[in-house]
Amino acid sequence: MADKPQYLTGNIAAINEFIDEFDVFLLDCDGVLWSGDHVFEGIPETIKLLQSKGKRTVFVTNNSTKSREEYLKKLTKLNIPSTVEDIFGSAYSASIYISRILKLPPGKSKVFVIGELGIEKELDSENVPHIGGTDPELRRDITPADFEGLANGSLLDPEVGVVLAGLDFHFNYLKMAHGFHYLKRGAKFLATNIDSTLPMHHDFFLGAGSSMAPLVSAWGQPPLALGKPSQAMLDAVEGKFQLDRSRTCMIGDRLNTDIKFGVDGKLGGTLHVQTGVDKKEDWEKEDAIAVPRFYVEKLSDLLLAKE
Amino acid sequence: MADKPQYLTGNIAAINEFIDEFDVFLLDCDGVLWSGDHVFEGIPETIKLLQSKGKRTVFVTNNSTKSREEYLKKLTKLNIPSTVEDIFGSAYSASIYISRILKLPPGKSKVFVIGELGIEKELDSENVPHIGGTDPELRRDITPADFEGLANGSLLDPEVGVVLAGLDFHFNYLKMAHGFHYLKRGAKFLATNIDSTLPMHHDFFLGAGSSMAPLVSAWGQPPLALGKPSQAMLDAVEGKFQLDRSRTCMIGDRLNTDIKFGVDGKLGGTLHVQTGVDKKEDWEKEDAIAVPRFYVEKLSDLLLAKE
Repeated sequence: MADKPQYLTGNIAAINEFIDEFDVFLLDCDGVLWSGDHVFEGIPETIKLLQSKGKRTVFVTNNSTKSREEYLKKLTKLNIPSTVEDIFGSAYSASIYISRILKLPPGKSKVFVIGELGIEKELDSENVPHIGGTDPELRRDITPADFEGLANGSLLDPEVGVVLAGLDFHFNYLKMAHGFHYLKRGAKFLATNIDSTLPMHHDFFLGAGSSMAPLVSAWGQPPLALGKPSQAMLDAVEGKFQLDRSRTCMIGDRLNTDIKFGVDGKLGGTLHVQTGVDKKEDWEKEDAIAVPRFYVEKLSDLLLAKE
Repeated sequence: MADKPQYLTGNIAAINEFIDEFDVFLLDCDGVLWSGDHVFEGIPETIKLLQSKGKRTVFVTNNSTKSREEYLKKLTKLNIPSTVEDIFGSAYSASIYISRILKLPPGKSKVFVIGELGIEKELDSENVPHIGGTDPELRRDITPADFEGLANGSLLDPEVGVVLAGLDFHFNYLKMAHGFHYLKRGAKFLATNIDSTLPMHHDFFLGAGSSMAPLVSAWGQPPLALGKPSQAMLDAVEGKFQLDRSRTCMIGDRLNTDIKFGVDGKLGGTLHVQTGVDKKEDWEKEDAIAVPRFYVEKLSDLLLAKE
């Protein structure tokens, strides 16, 4: 059994000790920094405080709809200081996996994308050829000619070796039918992440795992997910930042992605915030998927630390 | 353990005995009579043969995209004799369940539909008010205003008491987000059927269970499915036709819907055909979900019976 998580909110001594224990903070974004386009109060100041104390803040997000460049724009707009090098998204993680680990054979090197621009940009950054994605030709109703062309294969690109799915706000029957037929012809099934819900507007909407669910249901097998809690993502983060895991803390709102990511990766610490999907009650359960080492009500509770 | 299924193909004596044992044949359609718009050879003649021997042929289909009237048109066009009274679809079954069993309270009597025209027509036939479905206003991309209006409830109809999902060739993020928010506000979650795949063009595409999978994933709970193998559907068929279950045989291609439907309903017989989703190998497995009493290669193998 894990020790009981330590509550930091309102405890200035504990907060200072917590911050001193780590050099690197890996921060989830949705549900920690913001909900959709609504940034939580005190977040920019909290990040600045950590940076002023010489800490490295790395934004590790499962949201694949934005590329690192787009994330940087969002962070900058919200007055949260960062550089593109300190942003690590699941689309980037998946692209690295495909280009450096999977090493697709010639003739099967293309990726069929179910997702948004962020995935396409990160595949481009690793020079991985791709089709599907935001192609307007696939943003329409399926026709009898599509059914026939998918069944006889004439509409399929024989070079597709991977179906990569992420959060797609434009999912439809036509895209899923393409993905399904590529899988039936031997393509590998990968996902940027499989979060079932997405915090937005102080509410929840459908996440990547839900937007790709038609394909998972038809195919009958889940994809290999490369976002949190996949350790492929932590290995990539570690390789890039040369971090000391014992001096690194993962901060997040979800037990099954963020906290599990940190626990499985044997990081020195994990901090759970109550501003997103999972709450205290979720890790208090007997069968909790992961239990954090620390928790606060909201990330800006850390502002109590002495300057 | 069930007895080993009896193979009828090519065995004229066994076929005659099989036909003589039953008064009513419940026939699945997709994968038994046709694949999509392609009718299998010899099907009209086989149905006519059964009818000429005084048998009642009832078409029991999980496909909710067509109403009974539309099914009749399809059967007639394919030269398969029937009347609308001998057609029983999952959209009709779900409509009967909502109107006669669920009995929604006043103020919560509307159904939000995720599906095609067949569901809407059958709800109309039972005078159940509905929204969503084929409404062109929902066949578009989700906008920031939608996210906000769903989160604050201003876009939601307070009278919706049920979300009913079936096969939808036009599923999208906007419809699923509506369904998800109705469920979060207490609507009951029903499905016409949950078949994961759909036989078409001698191939498989996404079935109802896959088209509603985003909602199931986000909500975290499956719907109550009212098509096969739900016994609610068999009870409705029995009530309508006053059939003697021991003299009734279910004919189908799927073990988890058709054959299980007949076995669970304690029908006199079940006949499995090899022209659809599941094959002989599937019920030969140790952990088969259901095992038929009889099997043939294709339904028209019954034509060997003496006139």
